[in-house]
Amino acid sequence: MGKGRLEAFSDGVLAIIITIMVLEMKTPRAAELSALRPLALVFLSYVLSFLYLAIYWSNHHHLLYVTHRISGAIMWANLHLLFWLSLVPFVTRWMGESRFARGPTMLYGVLLLLAGTAYWLLQHAILLEEGAGSTLAAAVGSDWKSRVSLLIYAMAIPLALLRPWIAGALYGFGVLLWLVPDRRIERQVARAGQKVGTAGER
Amino acid sequence: MGKGRLEAFSDGVLAIIITIMVLEMKTPRAAELSALRPLALVFLSYVLSFLYLAIYWSNHHHLLYVTHRISGAIMWANLHLLFWLSLVPFVTRWMGESRFARGPTMLYGVLLLLAGTAYWLLQHAILLEEGAGSTLAAAVGSDWKSRVSLLIYAMAIPLALLRPWIAGALYGFGVLLWLVPDRRIERQVARAGQKVGTAGER
Amino acid sequence: MGKGRLEAFSDGVLAIIITIMVLEMKTPRAAELSALRPLALVFLSYVLSFLYLAIYWSNHHHLLYVTHRISGAIMWANLHLLFWLSLVPFVTRWMGESRFARGPTMLYGVLLLLAGTAYWLLQHAILLEEGAGSTLAAAVGSDWKSRVSLLIYAMAIPLALLRPWIAGALYGFGVLLWLVPDRRIERQVARAGQKVGTAGER
Amino acid sequence: MGKGRLEAFSDGVLAIIITIMVLEMKTPRAAELSALRPLALVFLSYVLSFLYLAIYWSNHHHLLYVTHRISGAIMWANLHLLFWLSLVPFVTRWMGESRFARGPTMLYGVLLLLAGTAYWLLQHAILLEEGAGSTLAAAVGSDWKSRVSLLIYAMAIPLALLRPWIAGALYGFGVLLWLVPDRRIERQVARAGQKVGTAGER
Repeated sequence: MGKGRLEAFSDGVLAIIITIMVLEMKTPRAAELSALRPLALVFLSYVLSFLYLAIYWSNHHHLLYVTHRISGAIMWANLHLLFWLSLVPFVTRWMGESRFARGPTMLYGVLLLLAGTAYWLLQHAILLEEGAGSTLAAAVGSDWKSRVSLLIYAMAIPLALLRPWIAGALYGFGVLLWLVPDRRIERQVARAGQKVGTAGER
Repeated sequence: MGKGRLEAFSDGVLAIIITIMVLEMKTPRAAELSALRPLALVFLSYVLSFLYLAIYWSNHHHLLYVTHRISGAIMWANLHLLFWLSLVPFVTRWMGESRFARGPTMLYGVLLLLAGTAYWLLQHAILLEEGAGSTLAAAVGSDWKSRVSLLIYAMAIPLALLRPWIAGALYGFGVLLWLVPDRRIERQVARAGQKVGTAGER
Repeated sequence: MGKGRLEAFSDGVLAIIITIMVLEMKTPRAAELSALRPLALVFLSYVLSFLYLAIYWSNHHHLLYVTHRISGAIMWANLHLLFWLSLVPFVTRWMGESRFARGPTMLYGVLLLLAGTAYWLLQHAILLEEGAGSTLAAAVGSDWKSRVSLLIYAMAIPLALLRPWIAGALYGFGVLLWLVPDRRIERQVARAGQKVGTAGER
Repeated sequence: MGKGRLEAFSDGVLAIIITIMVLEMKTPRAAELSALRPLALVFLSYVLSFLYLAIYWSNHHHLLYVTHRISGAIMWANLHLLFWLSLVPFVTRWMGESRFARGPTMLYGVLLLLAGTAYWLLQHAILLEEGAGSTLAAAVGSDWKSRVSLLIYAMAIPLALLRPWIAGALYGFGVLLWLVPDRRIERQVARAGQKVGTAGER
């Protein structure tokens, strides 16, 4: 089965999710710039979710770049990931509108944890198909970033009930962790290319 | 005529349908997690429709993978299928908001029946073009799943007027039937590949 | 310049336009099927616009299939067409909600006329680029369908102010005219293929 | 890393942004054509933003056409551009609904300035990757249009607080500046092709 349509469908869903979030921001009735002030936290939650979805798109891009075969398990693992990500606009809006109240802020962490786990499952399904000696297996390596991310979300969930702003800060830290682009796969691809070059094969 | 744009357009429409459903879920006014409880059935209907649309995307993917020529009949059969699927968000929202009331729950079954019939027509139009000896014809075989699905929806429609929850359970069963991925086409493609391999042709 | 992105962007815009129209249909508050009755005309206008947009997508598909070069004029003629089509959901909703009142029904005709003219301009821009001896020039021929369509819309506009249902019937007739798929290009491509075949070239 | 998915994702996001803006236009309650008059400025702001987004799509198309390698910096510069463009529907709606009031009209200029700067950064990131001798470097040249555009937006921002209609006229002028399609890259590609042709290489 070709991976082209899987990528196209995922791109479509991610593009829509990332874009409809902005539909949630209601324009103020008043025409003064000061009328934007109550929207500050709504905007902040939008920026946070835009960054998370951009990171997912970027990592998804890298992951599928080194994928060669799409099994049924990979297809469903991908749909599972898209399901949780499709709920991001709903929870983002609720967190923003409630001005980072305890409940919605906790739920945001739960959603990040579920989406992160779904991504890990997708990566696992692809690794099973690609095999231990594949470019992907070498590239993923110890995968400390994913582990730390899941730990951060798991910590933020109970903390949101005590001090929501700590949870918010942790979500922001989780973004920074990934904003440094994941060069592992790029490096591994480059290294694989070099070896091939050295061996004299085209 | 190339099948690339047919797939791209169908992917686009399906990606939008599956994503805008979540726009229908209104965020609660209250900021407590308990405010989500009234949304439970809305969420359940969302999960149900997400799964149905994911199944349609997956089956559509398999179906077009073994399609070689796109006739005018295939193009219109495909648009006919997309038309019924485009109504899924509307009926899903109504069924969820009415807490699985008789009328909306019945209508959901009618829509599944119409979409299922449209898919069957699309498959038929492709089979006519591909011919009886094609990979697709061998792969589809007796096609018992489609028949059983249509039977389930037809049964659920009158039952929804008596006991909506029975209809709801049948819709859930209809999802489970398809969640086991349709390996018929994959197997047939693999088998066709083997034969070709044995015959020594490239 | 490649035509791939032009097709992808047009497919995306058309897929979104055709899908968001259904977002306009508000679910009834009551949970009885009879609550759908006031939506009948909204649904009818949705079906009408779905068919028109499907026809545009299909014709656009055929048109670009025989296009080889994308000039700046073609790109802007295409964006001009997409602009008018993007207004279809707005006018469709207004016509449906006003139960085919004179003003909105007239506006629908104006929009069809503008979109039809934009399509004609796009075709013209492509013909200029392809030249008189091209497959497209032979395929388009006298192009009576486009002329008759524009005439129908032009007639419907004043009639909508007298008897909106006559305009509505004309819009329906305009759909039927095109539902018979445009086989001219297909035939011409087949004919061109045959000639080449006869000449002994591959 | 392939540029295919970057283009597909950008096309998806731009197609959605350009299309959902029309969702913001609320249909009038009255069924007379005169009920459209209060929408005139909303429509005008829609046309303005449609043109700006169409120009961005067109320039983005040209820019990536001559791009060969996608670095991490290019990917993030592209996401940064899409972020500001995703806010266009929100600000467009506010400017239209407030009938080009000072605050919203100024904010529109700020957004154009931020998006213009993001585009410049993207172009810069690609130039860094392509190198000084590339087709792109020759094509961009002095890039006076971008500079003039940014100057126009920077001038419009303070002017919006004095006379919003002057700022509006400047935004319209900024569109006209770009509507003349950017033939620099086309010419450069043609020139590069000619040289190659003269040299006798295929």
